[in-house]
Parts: sequence; C-alpha cells; structure tokens
Amino acid sequence: MLPRGRPRALGAAALLLLLLLLLIGFFLLGWDPECERLEPDGRAGDLGCSRCPLTPRVPSDGRLRGASALHGDPLAGHGVHNHSACNPQPPLPPKCELLHVAIVCAGYNSSREVITLVKSMLFYRRNPLHLHLVTDTVARNILETLFRTWMVPALGVSFYDAEQLKPQISWIPNKHYSGLYGLMKLVLPGVLPPGLTRVIVLDTDVTFASDIAELWALFAHFSGVILLLLDQLRQVGWEQMWKLTARRELLTLTATSLADQDIFNAVIKERPELLQPLPCVWNLQLSDHTLAERCYSEAADLKVIHWNSPKKVRVKNKHAEFFRNFYLTFLGYDGNLLRRELFGCPSQPPPEAEQLQRALAQLDEEDACFEFRQQRLTVHRVHITFLPHKPPPPRPHDVTLVAQLSMDRLQMLEALCRHWPGPMSLALYLTDAEAQQFLHFVEASPVLSARQDVAYHVVYREGPLYPVNQLRNVALAQALTPYVFLSDIDFLPAYSLYDYLRASIEQLELGGRRKAALVVPAFETLRYRFSFPSSKAELLALLDAGSLYTFRYHEWPQGHAPTDYARWREAQAPYRVQWAADYEPYVVVPRDCPRYDPRFVGFGWNKVAHIVELDAQEFELLVLPEAFTIHLPHAPSLDISRFRSSSAYRDCLQALKEEFHQDLSRRYGAAALKYLTALQQPRSPA
Amino acid sequence: MLPRGRPRALGAAALLLLLLLLLIGFFLLGWDPECERLEPDGRAGDLGCSRCPLTPRVPSDGRLRGASALHGDPLAGHGVHNHSACNPQPPLPPKCELLHVAIVCAGYNSSREVITLVKSMLFYRRNPLHLHLVTDTVARNILETLFRTWMVPALGVSFYDAEQLKPQISWIPNKHYSGLYGLMKLVLPGVLPPGLTRVIVLDTDVTFASDIAELWALFAHFSGVILLLLDQLRQVGWEQMWKLTARRELLTLTATSLADQDIFNAVIKERPELLQPLPCVWNLQLSDHTLAERCYSEAADLKVIHWNSPKKVRVKNKHAEFFRNFYLTFLGYDGNLLRRELFGCPSQPPPEAEQLQRALAQLDEEDACFEFRQQRLTVHRVHITFLPHKPPPPRPHDVTLVAQLSMDRLQMLEALCRHWPGPMSLALYLTDAEAQQFLHFVEASPVLSARQDVAYHVVYREGPLYPVNQLRNVALAQALTPYVFLSDIDFLPAYSLYDYLRASIEQLELGGRRKAALVVPAFETLRYRFSFPSSKAELLALLDAGSLYTFRYHEWPQGHAPTDYARWREAQAPYRVQWAADYEPYVVVPRDCPRYDPRFVGFGWNKVAHIVELDAQEFELLVLPEAFTIHLPHAPSLDISRFRSSSAYRDCLQALKEEFHQDLSRRYGAAALKYLTALQQPRSPA
Repeated sequence: MLPRGRPRALGAAALLLLLLLLLIGFFLLGWDPECERLEPDGRAGDLGCSRCPLTPRVPSDGRLRGASALHGDPLAGHGVHNHSACNPQPPLPPKCELLHVAIVCAGYNSSREVITLVKSMLFYRRNPLHLHLVTDTVARNILETLFRTWMVPALGVSFYDAEQLKPQISWIPNKHYSGLYGLMKLVLPGVLPPGLTRVIVLDTDVTFASDIAELWALFAHFSGVILLLLDQLRQVGWEQMWKLTARRELLTLTATSLADQDIFNAVIKERPELLQPLPCVWNLQLSDHTLAERCYSEAADLKVIHWNSPKKVRVKNKHAEFFRNFYLTFLGYDGNLLRRELFGCPSQPPPEAEQLQRALAQLDEEDACFEFRQQRLTVHRVHITFLPHKPPPPRPHDVTLVAQLSMDRLQMLEALCRHWPGPMSLALYLTDAEAQQFLHFVEASPVLSARQDVAYHVVYREGPLYPVNQLRNVALAQALTPYVFLSDIDFLPAYSLYDYLRASIEQLELGGRRKAALVVPAFETLRYRFSFPSSKAELLALLDAGSLYTFRYHEWPQGHAPTDYARWREAQAPYRVQWAADYEPYVVVPRDCPRYDPRFVGFGWNKVAHIVELDAQEFELLVLPEAFTIHLPHAPSLDISRFRSSSAYRDCLQALKEEFHQDLSRRYGAAALKYLTALQQPRSPA
Repeated sequence: MLPRGRPRALGAAALLLLLLLLLIGFFLLGWDPECERLEPDGRAGDLGCSRCPLTPRVPSDGRLRGASALHGDPLAGHGVHNHSACNPQPPLPPKCELLHVAIVCAGYNSSREVITLVKSMLFYRRNPLHLHLVTDTVARNILETLFRTWMVPALGVSFYDAEQLKPQISWIPNKHYSGLYGLMKLVLPGVLPPGLTRVIVLDTDVTFASDIAELWALFAHFSGVILLLLDQLRQVGWEQMWKLTARRELLTLTATSLADQDIFNAVIKERPELLQPLPCVWNLQLSDHTLAERCYSEAADLKVIHWNSPKKVRVKNKHAEFFRNFYLTFLGYDGNLLRRELFGCPSQPPPEAEQLQRALAQLDEEDACFEFRQQRLTVHRVHITFLPHKPPPPRPHDVTLVAQLSMDRLQMLEALCRHWPGPMSLALYLTDAEAQQFLHFVEASPVLSARQDVAYHVVYREGPLYPVNQLRNVALAQALTPYVFLSDIDFLPAYSLYDYLRASIEQLELGGRRKAALVVPAFETLRYRFSFPSSKAELLALLDAGSLYTFRYHEWPQGHAPTDYARWREAQAPYRVQWAADYEPYVVVPRDCPRYDPRFVGFGWNKVAHIVELDAQEFELLVLPEAFTIHLPHAPSLDISRFRSSSAYRDCLQALKEEFHQDLSRRYGAAALKYLTALQQPRSPA
C-alpha cells in the first residue's frame, strides 16, 4: 500500500523549481501585526493565527530540505524568521481561473503513482486545471487512455515527449534512469508553451491535503514579479546559468553524477538571492528530522505531503499514520466520484462527453431494459498495463491469450500462467481499492511476478451489470501479437496449446491466405480436484470415464455442438465446420478481428453474437484436432443467478438479441437472413 | 447507494434548533466593506469574497427552508439582505477546544446512516469532538460496539436513553415513529449535561464538506450571548414556550399531528426575534427549489449537505451528482483511516487503545510470525446487526446457525436460507465499500430480504490474514438463542436439521443435565450440480454411488474420523465418541460455550483448537444419527493457497500450536497432557 522509494533529488527538485518561480515574492508578503503581537515567540499563535486557513507557516528556522544548502545564509535565515508568524492570506484565484500544473512522469509505476496525486488534487480543487505531462511513450499511452476515459470536467491535459528532451540533459552524468527524468525539470521553462507564464511543478509522489488554488495564490499575490522572472528563465538567463554551473561543478565535483537537486543547489549557492523559502507546510517531508517534526506538529495546516523516501513511511512515529492515511485515502478513492462539474464555472465538455450526455438523455427510464442500455453506454475509466510489462518481440505467428475477470477469479491467474507460457492480455474489472489489492496479490505471487509478458488492464467498476464485452474489447485492443486466442478466465488450456497454435497458424497460413477462425474444443470438469490431461489421448480417457464432459453438455449443448466432438475424437487434421444458431466456440483469430458487441452486458449471448459476426464476415471455422481447453467449476456468477431468477432479465436479453439482428441485416443485408431465421426458434441460454 | 428518505421535519428542525442557539449573534457579525464595494448586487463577489473560507453566503433573499414561515418578516428579511455579502470569518476555535455534537438516532437504518455523517465530520475535523447520542436500545447496542472497536482518538461518545424522553413528548399527536424521535430535539436542552453550554445538533442524514470547527466558530464569535440564551432555554423559558405554543396550536390546528418543525415554526411566529437565519451553505438542501439552486451555484463554499428527501437525489440536475458524490465518498470511505491522532493536541487514549499499543510495541518485527501476531492483536471495527433484524422469540431449545464469510461467498446466502429456516448470526469480513455492495445484494434478493431472523454483523477488514476465529467469536457473541450450531459458510445443512436439532436438544436435556456437544456429521460433494439428499437414506445412496464423500476424506481424514461414519450409517440413537488429535467436527453447543482462540488467523487449526478446548472442559461429544451437513465445492481461498505454497506459513502455524498447548497446560494442568502428546506426532493439515 505504501509508495515506493525514489531518489530524494526527484523529491526536492520539483519544489525547488517552484521556489525559483516564487523568487522574491515572499518578501512582498506583509504579515498580520496582531498575530505578531499574539506570538512573540513565534509559536503561541497556534491558537488564533495558525488556524487562518491559508497561513503559510514556517517554523522559526524551518525551510525546505532542498534549501538546506543555504543554511548559513543570513538573508534567507532572516527572511524565514521574519515570516514565521501569520501572513494575511493572499486571495484565492477566481473560481474560473485556469491553474497549470507540470509533472514529469515515465514508466509503468510512476504512471500509477501520479493517479493518486491527481485524485487528491481533484478532490480539493475548485478551479479548472490543466496538466502539462512530460512523459515517455509508456506513460503517455497509459495516461492518454486514462484521462480520455476518465472524462473529468474542467481538466485539460497536454503531453510533451520526454525523448526529445533527453539530448539537452543527457550530457550530465547521472546514475539512473529516473535521475535523467528528474533533470528534465531543469529544461521545463523551455518546453512549456511560450504563452504560459506560471506553472506549479509537482512530483508524482506528492499528495494534496488542500486546494491547490491556495498554492497558486502565492503566485497571484505577486504575479508581476513571476512573469518577469519566468521571462528571464526563458531567455538565456536561466539556461546559461544552470549549464555553466553544472559544468563548473563537474570539473571540481568528486561525485560521479549530478542530480537535478545538486544543480539547483549549486546555482543557488552562487545566486543566493534566487532562493525563496516556501513554508514547510507546502512540502511536508516526513522524517525524524526536527524540521519536519516542527512542521507537522502544526499539521492541521498541512497542505501537501511529500512521499520522497521509502524509509519515511516506515518510521516508527505516531504521526506517520496521519500522513499515510491521507495517501491511502486517495490511493483507494473511487475516481468516478471526481467526474463532477465545477460550480459557478461551466466547463466546455469534450465532444465524447457531450455525445454521451445526449445518448444518456435519450434513454427512457421506464424502459424495462434501461439498466442494460445505461450500462452499455457507460464509459469506464481504463488503466492499461497497470503493472510493468515487457511487450513480446515481434513474431509472425505469435498468439496472445485474451480474457477478462474480476476480483473473485484472481486465484485462476497462477494456474493460467502455468498452462499458457505465452503473452496474455487480461482486462480486470475492479474498484480503485481492489486494484490495490490486486497489485499486492501479484507482488506476493512468485509465479505472477516472474511473468513480464502478461499485460493487466484495469477497467474501473461502474454500474450494476458486468460489462463483459467491453472488457473483452479492452483486452483485445491491447493484444500486441498478430493473433489472439479469445478465451475465458475459468478455462485452462492444454499445456501444449500455445506452441501448437503457433505451429498451426504457420502451417495453415492464416491471415495471409485464408480468413479463418481456429476453433479450440472446450470441455469441462465438474470436479474440483482432478489431474489435468497431458494429451488428447488422456483427455479422451477421462471423457469416457465420465470425469470430463464436453462443455456445458448438460445444460446448453447447442453452444458447442457444431464443433462436432465425435469427429474431433478421430480427426488427424483441421476440419471445417458450419455456423449454427447459438454456437459460441473459443477461437483463435487475427488481432484485427471484429470487436465484441458491447450491448450484451451481464450474462448471456455475449460470445454468441461475436461468432455470428465472424460468420457474417465469412471467417472459415476450422477445428484443430489436437487443441483443447477445460473449464473448471466455480460458484455461479451473480449475473447468471440474476438471469436464472429474473424473467425481466431474460426478456431484455431477448430484446437486445432482436436489435442486434436488425443491425446485422442493416449491415449485411440478405446474407444476415439466416441468423434472423435461426432466431425465430429462440432457445434461452441456460 | 442513495440515502433513504425521511420526514422533512427531522431535516429542518435540527438546524432550526441550531438557529435558536445562534440567536442574535449574526447581527453582531460585521462585514467586509471592501466586499460590499466589490459587489453592490451582492452576487458579483464570487471572484474575491465568496472564496474567503468561512464566508457565510446568503443569496439576497435566501434563508433556511425551515424558516420560510417567516417569509413576510421585514426584520429577518432585512437581516438577511444586509448580510448577503462577505463577513470576516470568525477565528476558528483553538485546536484543542472540545466541540460538542448532539444527534438523535434510533433503529438499524439510522445507525447505519449516522456512520457516514460521523466519517465526513472526522475527515475534516481538527478538534477533539464529543458526540451526545440520544438513542433507542437498538442504536445504542450497535453504536456502543462500533465506537468501542473503532477507537478513534480524540472522539468522546455519550449515550442518552430516548425511552426516558418519550413521556415528555408523547402527548403531542404525531404520525410516525421517526416523528417522535424528531420531537426529542425539543427537549435536548433539558437532557444534555447542565455544564454543557453549546452544542451543534445534527440529523443523521447530513454530510459534512468542511471542518465542523467552522460551524462551531459561529458560536465562539458571540459565545456570551449563546451562554445566556442556552441558560434561558434551560430554565422555564424555552420549555414553557414551546409547550404552550404547541398546546395552543393543537386547539386551532386542523392537522392531526405536529412535527417538531411545526412547533419550532409556531414558536418563531410568536417570537420572531428568536429567528437567526443561517447561511444556506450550512444546510444545503438539494431540490429544484430556487433557494437551493441559488445557494449551490456557490457550492465551492459548501459546508454541509443535507439529505432530507429521497426525491432530491433523483432530481435530474447536473449538480445532483456533485452532492451525491460527497455522500458516496464517505459512505464507502475506509473508517480505519480515521483512526489518526490529532496534531498539536495529544488526546488521552482509552485504556484498551493503550494496552493495544503496548502489546503491538512488544512484537518483534523480525519474528517470522510477526504478521500472525499482529493480525491476532488487530481490533477490527465491528458493526453488529448491520441490517434490520427481528430477534427470535425466546424458546428454550432454539438454535442459531453461526458462521462467517467474506464477499466471495455471498452467493451461498440464498441457498443457506433455504436449508436453514431458523435464526442465523453471520459475521461478514468486508471493507466499507463492500458493506454497501452487500447491502444492495440483500435488498435485491427476495429470499434474503424476506428473512428477519438473520443477523449480519460487519467486521471491517484490516491486515493481510483472514481473522477467522475473531469473526466466529463476533457471530457467536451475537447469537440470541440458548444453543448455537457452529457451522461454516460453504456447508448446506440437511433441510430437516433445524427441527431435528431442537428436538434432540429437548430430548437429550442438553445444557440442563449434561454438558455435551452434538456432532453433525459432515460430507462433501466435489460436483457443482447435484441434487441435495432429502434424507439420510438418500445421502447413504449418494455416498455409495461415489457422488458424495465424507468430508475431506481424500486429504484430511483425521479431521472427522472420530465421528465414526461406519457406526453412523447404522446408528439409530445418539452415540458418544472420544476426542482424538486433529478432530474438527461441526457441533451444536450452548451459547455460553468456550470462544475460539483468536491467535489462529488465516488457514489452519482454527476449529481443531476449539474442539480441544471443549474436550478439556469435559464436553461429551454426541453424534446425532439423523443429522448431516454437506460441503459444496469452491475455489480454494487465498489463505489455503498461501498455506500450501509457503513453508514459513506452516512453520508459524506450528509455532502457534505449541504456544496454544503451553497455555492449555497452564490452564488445565495434567489433564492437558494428552493434547501435548498428540501434538508430538504432528501431521500438517492439508
């Protein structure tokens, strides 16, 4: 649950840049003489002044850890001392003023971390925000998808390519990857749009405990100065300054590397007037360090908590809990709740959001299937590749196993990994809190954490019905191999299936010569403990012994009858079968196959419709003689229970089927007739 | 997810009482002339003034819905108008000032509602709080347990018996139950401790969106006046006043009933000077009503959201979402995160909390079993009878089924209800968010919502290991019948078992004459779909057919071997069996039987130890010839998987066993030797 450690440099540097932007301004702040009177010792004021919601408090000798290089500097010391008491709060920016935030974010883990920061910022914010994200390709893919699907009103996002910045800083020797990204803060002024005059730069490991507007207000109070300074930064001034300093340092420095903080400190050492201490409440760094202690003893005024060292959260300290709890609050916070309009400040929603609103508005609440239609329209937040992932090397006949699951199927993952040594793309339907449990589950499992080729995509829960086909489409869209095996989470494939499929694809010249779907015959066991057959021969033996059945033989034979199990027993070569009503085999198809129809939510007909689509697009159905997959028993899902118990549920499913067929005829004309005819003798799925 | 509706009276009255307490004070508030200049029309000020954190904003003709009786009153109108702009914020109370809150809460549902209010209050609060709860016995039982186990620092709770207040108000005709509790607010001044000078009175359906200290500050600003007023209220003044008015109203009133709000309004009508309009941000009532509209268009300053009508949350209104999200935020908020110390204001923890701290401090983090010992010491928040419950009528031989479960076993509940028509006491291990899902699950199930005799006790999740025995002890402690059937959630008892057990208990004169545990033989099916045997004969047939087995026959026979299934086949009468190592039968015992040993967390030995305890206390073990229960297959729990995979886990279990036996010998001396000897040949559970 606790944030991973990162180099301290990353931590302090961001705030230091902020300090530079805050240059001088602090001295323009007056302070409330009454408070001075109240607290000659600079402490007693807790009673009155320290509680003014926006008082920047600085413990008498408190200043940023990042600024400690300046400890001897009387000016800073003086400045700090003078302002240890209350200052009148600068007025908050107008409700509709757009606040700008810049974050450097690279890789899978930082992309996860930054979400918690963003949630805490959104929870307290009252202003429109614009995020300027400097990202590598990994983070960009993840965050673009996330923010597009999150659809938070009054939140803008721009991306900047970190790759292009590397040359400007890569000449600086630095130990690690993250160090390089830390250094990018040095060049931000040059990267951000020229029109942008102010920006708050944050690390990914920061949690807000108040409205970011209060931080922004520290700009507003002396914005003229900031503008001026930012211009300077933009011209040679700053760029020259830090580069020269860095080079000079490199000559003398014994250290083999420079972190951005070292450079900031060095620059400041030469130009002390550049330093503007920020009240410690604006960068509370938890540690045994007395500075932090002093500061968080006032933590009622806490604004920002900064998680920039792993040790800190393990510190045996009764306060540690307080900070951890803030972090955990937003770690598990339901991000859907942040999709709320600002007040007195209407934002222009993105086109998709408007479309969605219109579509939802058109729904008829009296319609018996309202729930289904609403669920179908729901846009779920999607966090692709939630965990670190190594994309498979490009291989012409490679296959990705595609499936979806929720929390109650987690225990299938280890077995699945043992049965399928190839790449997988799995969509998980989780709440924000469950996503964290899932993270720990994987970390605790040697089997799972050993696998780099399994991509987990978190789709956040919303609405009463399980959006099975939307989940499948997310997993399918993220598959990176030319072929996909469309499976379900409660099936275990034959140990040999991965190799066998790749061989078959090559041999049958799939994709290239022929448009085909390879059928993997499905079986089931009703027993919990059974030894998985290591070959087709063993499987047939178990079948004859009655400890295995063809899948859903008892309650829904038509689902797989067309596979023709009798023929499969004898088959030595792949054989073609014809589509028939209600056929829902597990198939291997090219990645660019048709998507699943999202109108089918909950239980029933979600795969059937997809196979109809394949047939309509004239995919051959080829059954593979050596392939098999086996369904393990499990408690019935709540959706199946609902289906069995509720006739309304069944009626809606029937209605959705008919609409699906109308669409089919529209798209395929006469060719779609056979499906409609098939529907005329409806059998309801078990 | 949305709060249930309640009579509007309850809603407005609480705030109205607050108004009375706020009497006059408002007029002592000056206002910021600059703001007046900024906003001649009293609205433009949104930009600057409306953002002062504690600005009480009142739309130009805005006042409390509850006060609308006064619409014509020029004085109030004037007061309101004058103060539509910004007022300087009264200073917040000192960090350590104790704030008092009074709430009337009765019944199961209000007890649930009030938790969300308390969470929102604790999330934003910085001061020590004391809750004065006027409750009926149901709410008191629930809330006493909850707050005792919640252990929130700097939170005091006092209970006042609503029963005793009824006579003072029951003479007032009123339509419903809740109405009677609403009226209790009239007599609060007499109920609360004489020393108590100020209190904020809240409804259970309120959600805070800011620090309650800001509301308290409105007192502080003119506390002298308040003190004075409260004294008046306490002496005949108020009591006479409202009673006389009420009686007078009753003579003339056409209405057949008086709600507390009617009385407040009537009093105010006669004594207009008593009214002090409160800024609408302090009682934001969501509706299509323009007052609310005006107010929440400024909702950036929102302080309190008041859910006092079901309609409001369904209002088609883009703002509705905003308010609902605040409510849902705290509905699903992890209450454990609120167990945090206040800053700069150390609170005296309750003795249990101190003990716990000491015990935790003594744990050795290097100990391989640290996780187990920590989990064992964890005090989980407990919410007993989470849903409405009708205690069973006292019957001398009645039996309650006792079991525990987590989210992944919910789907067992309906089947269990069909198999066991008697009372049940079930402990559920859930997060706050899961508890809400569970609530909806029950509401959506006709079978479950039809049962009033099933008590659900929510134990909130904390820590990595499943606290199986703590859960069992919670369910056991809440069983209300003289006997309990100690079962597990994945077992379905014979349809006849409930009746058969009661008959056997009577016949064997259990409890009275003999100290015995009745053994219910356990079986298992490995198949998902099977027809449950309706008699012992049918069961034996299935057993012979190999579609049933004696429980865990394959991997852990010694767990039930002593039940002697061979003998059971033939048995016509109950027969006695002897304890043997690792015996863990399902038994029926008097409610006051020994508790489960909480040191056994996660998987393994948790029932075994309990049976040892029963044997050590010389309970006879009597097997019932017609009783049986059948285990259904399910995916292995994560704890079992961990047990099987981790040797450290097994070693810890071994260590715990040994400590358990040392305790046994300490308590039972020589008699306990046999258990120790049995342990010498350890077999590890499967």
